[in-house]
Amino acid sequence: MKSEDAEPRKEEKPTQKEETKALREWLVGQQQAIRTAGMPIIVLVEGWAAAGKGSLINELISEIDPRFYNVVSPVITPEADARYPFLYPYAKAIPENGKIMFYDSGWMEDTVRKYLRREITKEQYKARIRSVNEFERQLRDGGYLLLKLFLDIGRGEQRKRMNALRESFETEWRVSADDLWQQREYDAFKETYRGFMEKTGKAIPWHTLDGGDRKEAVHDALQLLVDLLQKAMEKGRYVGKPFQESFPLLHMKKLSEVDLSPALTDEEYKTELKKLQKKLGKLHNVIYRKKIPVILCYEGWDAAGKGGNIRRIAKPLDPRGFDVMPIASPEPHELNRQYLWRFWTRLPRSGHICIFDRTWYGRVMVERLEGFCAENDWKRAYNEINEFERQLTEWGAVVLKFWIHIDQETQLARFNDRQNTPEKQWKLTDEDWRNREKWPLYEAAVDEMLAKTSTKNAPWFIIESNDKKYARIRTLQIVIDALEKACEAH
Amino acid sequence: MKSEDAEPRKEEKPTQKEETKALREWLVGQQQAIRTAGMPIIVLVEGWAAAGKGSLINELISEIDPRFYNVVSPVITPEADARYPFLYPYAKAIPENGKIMFYDSGWMEDTVRKYLRREITKEQYKARIRSVNEFERQLRDGGYLLLKLFLDIGRGEQRKRMNALRESFETEWRVSADDLWQQREYDAFKETYRGFMEKTGKAIPWHTLDGGDRKEAVHDALQLLVDLLQKAMEKGRYVGKPFQESFPLLHMKKLSEVDLSPALTDEEYKTELKKLQKKLGKLHNVIYRKKIPVILCYEGWDAAGKGGNIRRIAKPLDPRGFDVMPIASPEPHELNRQYLWRFWTRLPRSGHICIFDRTWYGRVMVERLEGFCAENDWKRAYNEINEFERQLTEWGAVVLKFWIHIDQETQLARFNDRQNTPEKQWKLTDEDWRNREKWPLYEAAVDEMLAKTSTKNAPWFIIESNDKKYARIRTLQIVIDALEKACEAH
Repeated sequence: MKSEDAEPRKEEKPTQKEETKALREWLVGQQQAIRTAGMPIIVLVEGWAAAGKGSLINELISEIDPRFYNVVSPVITPEADARYPFLYPYAKAIPENGKIMFYDSGWMEDTVRKYLRREITKEQYKARIRSVNEFERQLRDGGYLLLKLFLDIGRGEQRKRMNALRESFETEWRVSADDLWQQREYDAFKETYRGFMEKTGKAIPWHTLDGGDRKEAVHDALQLLVDLLQKAMEKGRYVGKPFQESFPLLHMKKLSEVDLSPALTDEEYKTELKKLQKKLGKLHNVIYRKKIPVILCYEGWDAAGKGGNIRRIAKPLDPRGFDVMPIASPEPHELNRQYLWRFWTRLPRSGHICIFDRTWYGRVMVERLEGFCAENDWKRAYNEINEFERQLTEWGAVVLKFWIHIDQETQLARFNDRQNTPEKQWKLTDEDWRNREKWPLYEAAVDEMLAKTSTKNAPWFIIESNDKKYARIRTLQIVIDALEKACEAH
Repeated sequence: MKSEDAEPRKEEKPTQKEETKALREWLVGQQQAIRTAGMPIIVLVEGWAAAGKGSLINELISEIDPRFYNVVSPVITPEADARYPFLYPYAKAIPENGKIMFYDSGWMEDTVRKYLRREITKEQYKARIRSVNEFERQLRDGGYLLLKLFLDIGRGEQRKRMNALRESFETEWRVSADDLWQQREYDAFKETYRGFMEKTGKAIPWHTLDGGDRKEAVHDALQLLVDLLQKAMEKGRYVGKPFQESFPLLHMKKLSEVDLSPALTDEEYKTELKKLQKKLGKLHNVIYRKKIPVILCYEGWDAAGKGGNIRRIAKPLDPRGFDVMPIASPEPHELNRQYLWRFWTRLPRSGHICIFDRTWYGRVMVERLEGFCAENDWKRAYNEINEFERQLTEWGAVVLKFWIHIDQETQLARFNDRQNTPEKQWKLTDEDWRNREKWPLYEAAVDEMLAKTSTKNAPWFIIESNDKKYARIRTLQIVIDALEKACEAH
């Protein structure tokens, strides 16, 4: 009787080892299907120093095709830290569709350590937690799968492991002064880790694994990963729903209400231009010294005069300290990632000025109108962009956005001029004519965009550009005012 | 009579101002034609501190469409310095086809300063000069236009300008301690600049401009740029001729001579694998501490077992310290640059291991056989690659190259196995079958590649992989031997 009883029970309950093997096999067997399904996957492995994060990741990847995953440990590139927004190294590393990116610790560790070390204030800590929630939600809504793991070990176990590591030349470097400090401040860390996970675990949950039992940790992590993937493959790629967060918005005129008559004489223009450019050149030096990042965004009608306007801003700037970023259609590797990725990766270092010639607002204009993204995608984008820009301004950036505005007649006149002037013909494409036919649609989209994304910290300015001279002077003046204010505040 | 005489003379000799204006207009008028012609252009602006390099560049770009140029000043990103080959920041910044990249000082300044500061030895200085000549020639042969300018000012003028800059808060930061040191060591710099230009000016000449006369400098720079562009547009894109430099090459067997019978029993494999992986894991720590960069290159027949081999190497490595770089077909932004660019940008930081799953050798295999590049291009590539790899090893990298080798029968068996095993089917594509038909062509190309690019510092190893177990153990052993040697030497 006993043996009869025992047999079926064994079949019902495979051992942990067998389960781990089966999970691994599933992962290896399905890797191509997952790749083809095109979902990008983020596995964030956080946890105590010496908890075995690296080993855990290594166990997870050991059977997977190397073309299918990457591992990053953004913490070890300190140069990024000071000169970019704190999410920059993580945002930069997000995987492309169909790939897994393992983060060997990430935004949690960075935030908790800096907070406990008093390198960021309580306010900044709170802002970071909000940004983390925004960042994760944006990724999820963009179809990313996120698995957040925390590898836990007790204080005694940590001490034991660190001591073992410090015994040999090959491994002693693995225990940093920071890690030793964590060991001493174990309780404070524990409390802060707990709080961080509580505040960032609502939308996308945290999973705590027992770092004291390596095999169990590997098994559990595999189980979680496989569950996540299976569910995702059943349901297909997720598209987040749009929602309206209460950003304090500035009132914007509708384009049709804008008076486009302002103009300058050649004389006024010349005098002002010289004066303002001199001022801007001087300010650029201060910006550079005070390490204030500056982001100038240009959008506007075709032939509105964006290029010439940008050149007048760029002229007095030191070329070592600014960049003009022309934004064309996304390339394949850009289309394969969340849409803000190609802007994250183009952010200026602090102290530098980046002039975007077209921007992330393409999402709610051309991508919306040409159907390059789903309706939910562009509707969600207003909020996502407001969040992104708030993250930039919280980093300390001056963010100014210009809609270079003309009316339809002026555009027609300029199109005709381009057509009739050989060296300007290249500036005019069939697409420009096609876009012109969609003027009313674009105008409605622009009005909605201006209404929904002009915030105090990252305001829109409609620049009247029927007279290009007036437009240039006005833009220069706005930039100078904002930079002067920023320099005073720093 | 006088007035009659004066008039025509004035027409014959336009003033400098008029000439500058005409040159600018030509540039603006032709920018689209230049862009369409697709030539990438590098303008390197070197010169004395306070000579006005930034202002000169600003004058040059002031009328050009921002989509058409970029400015980099690689010197101000010191993080790149220590962890990458010295040409890395410059190679990373090369323009894409149809664009101008202005370098606000570059490889000359970097090299001369480090030499005078005794941060590099005489030997290293010489090696750098050789590398610079190789780098510039490779770009030129790849269709790049290079304009090399040196902005000259005298010692007294430099002192005067530095003093003026140091008088105000906004500009004092522009004079670094380094610059002041240059002022004191003016004569030594002068001598070294002269020597550097002499040694790097043979293939692509240097042009010295008088920094004491800003307008003349702008005029002369524009004149040189316009001349270069006009000539290039007449002649069309340049393709360099292949040539054979005398690299000391290791003798390599022909593939047909390789005995593919070596094999291991499961038992032998298991024991060895465990032992070697443990060893490699330990070595990785030392590599990391000693900051030795490691580059492992995998090439081989389809289904030869590259992926599994790579996984066995990767298994014991700390994921924080290595990357597997799968190399697929180049993307548009990669095709638009010199072919080594996408490898330059993927180099590991010192102390890290990068495993390339396929490499720059695609140039002399698939690109050669499929006609993706001109005959001169792939024939030239043997030398270019040897030079590139020498630059890597001079930086301190361990470079090992593996040809994972099987015979045709084994490939067929593995193809059939893939075809018949559902979870492996994705590994087999129509292209694999097509490539298989070209086996003899590929074999000849591989033999030529092995014969021409196996150098002492960056050797090829033919890995017998009919038995994958044997292949893995052999590769592990080679990697371990090389790393042990490198660790001893450091």
